[in-house]
Amino acid sequence: MAGVKSDIEIARAAQKKPIGEIGAKLGIPLDALAPYGHDKAKIGADFIASLSDRKDGKLILVTAINPTPAGEGKTTTTVGLGDGLNRIGKQAVICVREPSLGPCFGVKGGAAGGGYAQVVPMEDINLHFTGDFHAITSAHNLLSAMIDNHIYWGNALDIDTRRISWRRVMDMNDRALRQMVASLGGVSNGFPRESGFDITVASEVMAILCLAQDLADLERRLGDIVIGYRFDRSPVFARDLKADRAMAVLLKDAMQPNLVQTLENNPALVHGGPFANIAHGCNSVIATKAALKLGDYVVTEAGFGADLGAEKFFDIKCRKAGLKPDAAVIVATIRALKMNGGVKKEDLSTENVEALSRGCSNLGRHIANVRKFGVPVVVAINHFTSDTAAEVAAIEDYVARHGAEAIVCRHWAEGSAGIADLAYKVVELAEGGQANFQPLYPDNLPLMEKIETVASKIYHAGEITADKTVRDQLKAWEEQGYGHLPVCIAKTQYSFSTDPNLRGAPEGHVVHVREVRLSAGAGFVVCITGEIMTMPGLPRAPSAERIFLNEAGYIEGLF
Amino acid sequence: MAGVKSDIEIARAAQKKPIGEIGAKLGIPLDALAPYGHDKAKIGADFIASLSDRKDGKLILVTAINPTPAGEGKTTTTVGLGDGLNRIGKQAVICVREPSLGPCFGVKGGAAGGGYAQVVPMEDINLHFTGDFHAITSAHNLLSAMIDNHIYWGNALDIDTRRISWRRVMDMNDRALRQMVASLGGVSNGFPRESGFDITVASEVMAILCLAQDLADLERRLGDIVIGYRFDRSPVFARDLKADRAMAVLLKDAMQPNLVQTLENNPALVHGGPFANIAHGCNSVIATKAALKLGDYVVTEAGFGADLGAEKFFDIKCRKAGLKPDAAVIVATIRALKMNGGVKKEDLSTENVEALSRGCSNLGRHIANVRKFGVPVVVAINHFTSDTAAEVAAIEDYVARHGAEAIVCRHWAEGSAGIADLAYKVVELAEGGQANFQPLYPDNLPLMEKIETVASKIYHAGEITADKTVRDQLKAWEEQGYGHLPVCIAKTQYSFSTDPNLRGAPEGHVVHVREVRLSAGAGFVVCITGEIMTMPGLPRAPSAERIFLNEAGYIEGLF
Repeated sequence: MAGVKSDIEIARAAQKKPIGEIGAKLGIPLDALAPYGHDKAKIGADFIASLSDRKDGKLILVTAINPTPAGEGKTTTTVGLGDGLNRIGKQAVICVREPSLGPCFGVKGGAAGGGYAQVVPMEDINLHFTGDFHAITSAHNLLSAMIDNHIYWGNALDIDTRRISWRRVMDMNDRALRQMVASLGGVSNGFPRESGFDITVASEVMAILCLAQDLADLERRLGDIVIGYRFDRSPVFARDLKADRAMAVLLKDAMQPNLVQTLENNPALVHGGPFANIAHGCNSVIATKAALKLGDYVVTEAGFGADLGAEKFFDIKCRKAGLKPDAAVIVATIRALKMNGGVKKEDLSTENVEALSRGCSNLGRHIANVRKFGVPVVVAINHFTSDTAAEVAAIEDYVARHGAEAIVCRHWAEGSAGIADLAYKVVELAEGGQANFQPLYPDNLPLMEKIETVASKIYHAGEITADKTVRDQLKAWEEQGYGHLPVCIAKTQYSFSTDPNLRGAPEGHVVHVREVRLSAGAGFVVCITGEIMTMPGLPRAPSAERIFLNEAGYIEGLF
Repeated sequence: MAGVKSDIEIARAAQKKPIGEIGAKLGIPLDALAPYGHDKAKIGADFIASLSDRKDGKLILVTAINPTPAGEGKTTTTVGLGDGLNRIGKQAVICVREPSLGPCFGVKGGAAGGGYAQVVPMEDINLHFTGDFHAITSAHNLLSAMIDNHIYWGNALDIDTRRISWRRVMDMNDRALRQMVASLGGVSNGFPRESGFDITVASEVMAILCLAQDLADLERRLGDIVIGYRFDRSPVFARDLKADRAMAVLLKDAMQPNLVQTLENNPALVHGGPFANIAHGCNSVIATKAALKLGDYVVTEAGFGADLGAEKFFDIKCRKAGLKPDAAVIVATIRALKMNGGVKKEDLSTENVEALSRGCSNLGRHIANVRKFGVPVVVAINHFTSDTAAEVAAIEDYVARHGAEAIVCRHWAEGSAGIADLAYKVVELAEGGQANFQPLYPDNLPLMEKIETVASKIYHAGEITADKTVRDQLKAWEEQGYGHLPVCIAKTQYSFSTDPNLRGAPEGHVVHVREVRLSAGAGFVVCITGEIMTMPGLPRAPSAERIFLNEAGYIEGLF
């Protein structure tokens, strides 16, 4: 639209405050902040430890309907709600994930919010930021190098090289590295074997960093990593290779939360970013817990739609970290609900109340699902200019019939002024004492039953299938003492089912568990349904071809 | 020795000043510094550009005899001399290379000086520091991913996949990655081909960053990279893949010099660290040039011994950047010269004037070599407690007979107080107007004759051999317009010859050029003699096994 500024133009025009001033809003003394430039800082471990006696603020989860190509604006709404709460007088802290560098060079688009609801400096946040992902890459690959080095020098641990599950990682979309034969070239290069690379966000080290309570817990979890198996099938741990402590050294700074600000100069912690399929898809526990000590309100998000993101936020992050969310916001757009109702992307700007009403089934199920965790819900309609009054009325009506409220939010265009209504509603829910959080299943349920519980209660599957090898593997892990872990189901984000084309609210579908993986350090069992890509590729004309520094030294083409 | 503090103990006890105060010593305003924590900062590009009209200070190169396992202390002496010059009233700035992270986990030992002549914070400098090497890794691997992606999507450039010379890099000692077959696993992963990883310091991107004058020059050089050849044997450039501008975006911050301090709170720029064999082995041109504008004196170092390091400093860095060194310091230790004279490492603590005198031939040749560039020389004897008076007298006498002066330096134990004599001598040489720098050979000499010039004048080789393919390749590059480039000879650092066991000052040996490589972006032709390792491995018991965070949060085992 003519006259509408792009995200990057808005971000560049931001009147940023020195990061020390943002910290001061939360009572963080200057010497507890390690600055990275003038607009980013890490919060020191000693200061965070000193907060332990304080009362926690309210925890608000922002989740969404199943994603569509139309976009929902979950991060944008998270940032906007944080600004909105500050606007109405609450001390609110935003907690979001760090974006991955590699994908920025594939398809245009950052992950720091949008419009007038952004965290800044967005270029830095989307690229190297404070180096956390690079540190995770280094720690992960140190372990990888130590595994092959151990084998090279005689393999005293008797590692079965065919059963090494620990790969290498790189923060780059590089399909050529997915599958390789390494250690070629003769005696001095080791014993050839098959392996490959995942993208850094898929690293178990990332999940560990995001679930660890502090450095000591981080080191313990790193030691717990199972890198593969011996010829006698017993697990080999990272601590058997004596890699865990050096990995913790590499992660010492990465473990500390990053403080930045919104366009409205409100504090945001941007820290950690695990995949939402093979991992739990939430920002770090250490950031969320620190924020709860520092603010009245903490607004955080979880990856993908609520079936994956919210379920894992509740069943993995909250369960393990002892967090008790007070309310949840489900973000929807009229455009995305119309897609769920069968409208094609090119027809989304045409009013279509009937399709919208059909698509609302997706939203309705997410509302019901989130309530199963004992968390009260409000729906945020992230407003687009093409939305019509009839469409807005239809969705408000649908949500009201489901016992909740849908609130139109204009934070993208108006900043906090456009989202104050949602902020008031969130405060009403959070302070109304309705929340009674509990995870979906108890720790002591057998692993297969945990999968079945999520699949039936959240996905509404009719049948859950798994080969004998999968069932046997789950039983073996139970015998080895991993039965108490939660499950982390890797499923397409586009549908409640395992078929990405099945939009809306499918019922009675079959969920087939194809493979299971143990993330013993992170503390969950990954259950893979369908194809999961852990190393993306670049498109035919990657955005890297159009990213450059302009004459003023600004980055163009990244967003 | 009892009572003697370790490097890390000394570093931890440092009374560091806020980095803004260190910058202020050089007249750098606070807003021209981007802080990384409280003790590291990057100097802004605009501020550096604003210095262009200022007069340059004096440029002092610290180089050394051929390295031995006994150690010479070149970085330690560089740091010590910087402190010494500040002590005697000069505004001196130290310019040294950034250490590589990977090797820290192999064999114990950092690269930030030692004793009371260190740059701090040494743990940070040796690990992630300000993220420069991670940025170089990302930029390098983005180009790698774009090459395979281009081939995957149809190979419109007609790249011969057998002739791709651009590999991938990782800052880790990982021998398993030296040689691999990638793109395995079927259609969606691309076309299988052989490739491998080098360590990040071996990346041409590292050499480019260290030779570029500014961001525009960096981008131009990145575009000039030759990644391989088409089926018609014509070169494929990084700019043909449209990768150059996005790579520059990734390197925007890494391009800016890092300011830290010595234990005596004097300013040091620690920036860039290319290999000294397949690259030129010096810190960045941008750091050295900025330092020359900011200080009366700039003390810098070059990798390995003077045959490799000083030659490349003069013939590549100074030639290309228009630098004119005013004096050179050749660092030697009595222990290392005794090793050059045939003494075994375990016998080094016993007085042996005869072996020392024999070993002095190595020092004598380096003195004569450096003078061939028109640069006056002083010898720094980095003192060890085992050195005897007779040994000191012998080396002083030897150096005097070669028309130079040898000065005993005790900076390791005493800081600047122990190196003031050397500082005075350096000032005398630099201000005496003796320097008349010129490179060893002119730009327009044919490439093979450039190799012959270095090999005969510096290495004292009797014969230079090369296969016809090598000679043909050099001629082809001359025809393609690369004949004006300097040569960068990759040779063992342990000897003037290509035989690492031939210590002292061998004469008349044969130098065989096994392979040549074009670094068109960096701007030199690499000539490989003997085996050059571009991806190190880890030892049987890597130091990573003993690196950990102690209860106080300090890193143990790294140094």
